[in-house]
Amino acid sequence: MSEIRQDPMTKEWVIIAPRRGKRPHDLTGAERQARDGAPFDPKCPFCPGNEDNTPPAVASYPPLHPGSSFSWQVRVTPNKYPALDRAGAVDRRDDGVFRCMDGVGAHEVIVETPLHNRFLQFMELEEIELILRAYQERYLALHYEEWAKFVLIFKNYGPQAGTSLAHPHSQIVAAPIAPREIRHKYDVATDYYDDTGRCLYCDVVKQELESGERMILQTDKYVVFHPFASRSPFETIIAPRMEQPSFGHIPLQDVHDLAPVLRTTLRQISTLLGDPDYNLMVHTAPAEDENKSYFLWHIQILPRVTTPAGFELGSGMFINSMCPEDTAAFVRENWSEDMEARPASDAGATMTQPESTRVSSSNAE
Amino acid sequence: MSEIRQDPMTKEWVIIAPRRGKRPHDLTGAERQARDGAPFDPKCPFCPGNEDNTPPAVASYPPLHPGSSFSWQVRVTPNKYPALDRAGAVDRRDDGVFRCMDGVGAHEVIVETPLHNRFLQFMELEEIELILRAYQERYLALHYEEWAKFVLIFKNYGPQAGTSLAHPHSQIVAAPIAPREIRHKYDVATDYYDDTGRCLYCDVVKQELESGERMILQTDKYVVFHPFASRSPFETIIAPRMEQPSFGHIPLQDVHDLAPVLRTTLRQISTLLGDPDYNLMVHTAPAEDENKSYFLWHIQILPRVTTPAGFELGSGMFINSMCPEDTAAFVRENWSEDMEARPASDAGATMTQPESTRVSSSNAE
Repeated sequence: MSEIRQDPMTKEWVIIAPRRGKRPHDLTGAERQARDGAPFDPKCPFCPGNEDNTPPAVASYPPLHPGSSFSWQVRVTPNKYPALDRAGAVDRRDDGVFRCMDGVGAHEVIVETPLHNRFLQFMELEEIELILRAYQERYLALHYEEWAKFVLIFKNYGPQAGTSLAHPHSQIVAAPIAPREIRHKYDVATDYYDDTGRCLYCDVVKQELESGERMILQTDKYVVFHPFASRSPFETIIAPRMEQPSFGHIPLQDVHDLAPVLRTTLRQISTLLGDPDYNLMVHTAPAEDENKSYFLWHIQILPRVTTPAGFELGSGMFINSMCPEDTAAFVRENWSEDMEARPASDAGATMTQPESTRVSSSNAE
Repeated sequence: MSEIRQDPMTKEWVIIAPRRGKRPHDLTGAERQARDGAPFDPKCPFCPGNEDNTPPAVASYPPLHPGSSFSWQVRVTPNKYPALDRAGAVDRRDDGVFRCMDGVGAHEVIVETPLHNRFLQFMELEEIELILRAYQERYLALHYEEWAKFVLIFKNYGPQAGTSLAHPHSQIVAAPIAPREIRHKYDVATDYYDDTGRCLYCDVVKQELESGERMILQTDKYVVFHPFASRSPFETIIAPRMEQPSFGHIPLQDVHDLAPVLRTTLRQISTLLGDPDYNLMVHTAPAEDENKSYFLWHIQILPRVTTPAGFELGSGMFINSMCPEDTAAFVRENWSEDMEARPASDAGATMTQPESTRVSSSNAE
């Protein structure tokens, strides 16, 4: 059983999970993975036929089309080497200045497709939609657990993003404590709501739409932009344009309409940055506040194109070598017909480039 | 001029410094540097003879021995591509929900040696001592600037630690705002002092010494240990055993005695982990509180042997795959005579392994 420990200096919590790791002398650097592999890898624990190499599925979604040679399209299984699991108690234990508790929680893997080399940005929209539905359903299942104070859905794409397995997959972790950083974000949003009666996140989206200078994409329901205080180049946010605190409760039609937005965003990143490794995180209001209108769920995508160094690690303050206005303009100016055309052909979402692009284009004429 | 921006959601500050970076389409992954290069690289801006490639030195320390072929042993120069510089004003500007200010500050490079391939862990003690004195003197010079609210000395060793230049160097950044994470640490320490009348950091050192299970090294003046809530494997802390809030004010004799402790620690990491890339940060009390006894300066070393992934990025909560008790025991059990002997031969520091090692060794007999 792992442990969760609180740093007495920062009050930050750390999960100590020795079982996940190798022995100290096994440490080696990550090697870049080939992303042009075969559709099936006999050694991959997530490939069809190897289901016995992972714990029994907690959810399994059938193939999208009849006559498929696979028995599932999306499969959710507990992580074989979980950072947290359900054993233990949530009582905190003090030993002098040190505080810890058992590593209670859940850690699941969402295998996104039976095909070893079918990455998210290349999938059909219905495949992406099914993955988003699996995200939502597993989120709902876990966030109602009595001990769950925080649930995060995330995806690590490539070794520089921290994954050792190439097969397309996402993860979901439910923890029995709210991380300090997360609590702080909610506190800031709550204070803003107390002060103004408005949702801070909605006001950010509104201002990004008005200015347009950091905007990448907008549909009736969603906006995609590079945030004002981006921590690293091409940090990208996908957010709803309506009041939706919790990802767990968005209607199925909105999940459907999110798929092309996500795919276009990932294709832009992949095409413009040369298929970089990236992390994707789904942020959402905490379970107890999911009906309060001070928060908006959103997806954050961080391409791993830079390395946080000593200053970032020592201060928590990031140095970003690019201005988000410039990176957003770069995306708009290098907009590929292919990226735009495919999602736009989907009935559920009409994509438009932001107003500011069109204005500046006409200015240039 | 760069900008410092505050994220309205987290209240965290980010330096936006476009001049430091390349154009978006120039982004490429870092390549591993050779660390067995020649002592002189004609293209290196930090090598002797190339001083014109960097701004004029703000400090220069003469060679340690007469007859040296070099004109300096340690050279401090403003960063040619600074994250912050002295231009601009520290007034905050609001634009709706967004807040920013000019990127006022200082960013200097401490070139540690004239030799391109003479890395810290291989230096003579007097060379290391001189670097530590340069750290201290530049810290003092910068932290008295009227606008300086935060000064960080740090070192990035290798591309995975975020540096593109192989020549041994450290950096120092002075910023006009206190990062939220840093302020939070001071708040926690101040609250603890209010509650107990004691320094939290001193209590941590005391408890680490008593338990010994995470201890690596101890001298009369210093302790080296893997912290209780280590964020990544082999995170290492060097801390004084006396009340010393500010690194800027430690006596020269203590700087002298720190050199062998630092070298041994770096040699352990280099030998046991295969010369990994690492970051080194010097944490110290803020200028206005440097005489208050609620804080201890300390050096933090983070070998870059793991990659923070989506969970860490999305929660601020780290998953460490190794227990610090295990990594500390690994260091003690694989103690190299070479690592121990050299520093112990220095009159200023008598090195001993922690009590717990000797106890467990005798138990095993």
